[in-house]
Amino acid sequence: MLALGIDPGTAICGYGFVEYQGSRLIAREYGAITTSPKARMQDRLAHIYDSLDELIKKYKPDVMGVEQLFFNRNVTTAIPVGQARGIVLLTAAKNNLRLIEQTPLQVKQAVTGYGKADKKQVIYMVTKLLNLPKPPSPDDVADALAVAICTSYIMDSPAYRNGLL
Amino acid sequence: MLALGIDPGTAICGYGFVEYQGSRLIAREYGAITTSPKARMQDRLAHIYDSLDELIKKYKPDVMGVEQLFFNRNVTTAIPVGQARGIVLLTAAKNNLRLIEQTPLQVKQAVTGYGKADKKQVIYMVTKLLNLPKPPSPDDVADALAVAICTSYIMDSPAYRNGLL
Repeated sequence: MLALGIDPGTAICGYGFVEYQGSRLIAREYGAITTSPKARMQDRLAHIYDSLDELIKKYKPDVMGVEQLFFNRNVTTAIPVGQARGIVLLTAAKNNLRLIEQTPLQVKQAVTGYGKADKKQVIYMVTKLLNLPKPPSPDDVADALAVAICTSYIMDSPAYRNGLL
Repeated sequence: MLALGIDPGTAICGYGFVEYQGSRLIAREYGAITTSPKARMQDRLAHIYDSLDELIKKYKPDVMGVEQLFFNRNVTTAIPVGQARGIVLLTAAKNNLRLIEQTPLQVKQAVTGYGKADKKQVIYMVTKLLNLPKPPSPDDVADALAVAICTSYIMDSPAYRNGLL
C-alpha cells in the first residue's frame, strides 16, 4: 500500500511516497515541485499539474492524502493555496486515485502523538519514523511526508479496513 | 475577437462568450457549469475542468478574463473558490489561452461606469449592453458576462493594442 502525501503550494508543492515494509514505514521517494514567482500563475499551476501527474504515473500510489485547509488569518494566501490545492485534487480525480483528506490536528497527532505539536517536532518525528538520513527540507517536504504517514495509518486502521471510515 | 469571461465557483461556475459585432458587443453563448454538493470535491473539480475545456475547444475564444479575488471576510469560502479558480487557470494554460485578470472594481467600472455598483446594476447593464432577451440567471452568469465585457474593452483599448497593458 503506497501512500502519496501532498502539501499544496504554488511556489513549493511538497510530496512524499510512503509505504509499509513489514510493520515499519519507509519513504520511497520525496521532494518538492517548485515554480518561479516570475512565471505566470496559469503556467505555474500547469507545471504543478504536469509534474504531479508524472510522479503519480511513475510510482502508482494507491491513495493520496492531503490536508483540509482552514484559514483564520493570513487570508491573502488562501486563494493561491486554494488554487494549488485544486490542481492537486484534479490530478487525483484524473488518475482515479483514492483521496483521503485529514485535518492538520489529525496529521500532527498521528506523527507526534500530540495534535498541537510544532513544526520542529513534526520534522523530528518524520525523520525518526521514516529513518531518513537527515531532516527533509524544505519544511513542505516534511509536511507532505507527515501527511503520507497519517494516510498510511488511516488506511491500515481496522476502522478503515472494515469500511467504517 | 472572442472573449470568454469566467466567474469561478465550485457549485456554480459562470461563463460567457462575448464579441464585437461592428461597434456593438454581442453574447455568443453563456451559461453555468454546475456540480452537486453531494459529489466528491475532486470529481466536482474534474467536471469543471472537462466542461470548460470542451467549451474552449468548441468556441475557440481568443482570450479568457477572470477576476482577481480578495477575501476580507467570508474566509471559509476562500479555499473552495481558490480551488475552482485554479482549475479555470489550468484550462487557460492547457489551451494556450491568453489570460487577463482584472479587479472587481475594474469590471464594475467597465460595465456600469461606477466601481462600487451593486449586483442589480451590474445585471441590468449586462442585459442592456448585450441586448439580452432577459437578465441572465443565476447571478454567476451575469458576473461572467460582465468580466467578458470588461475583457473585450481591455483588448480593444489603444493601450492594450500598443502593448502598454
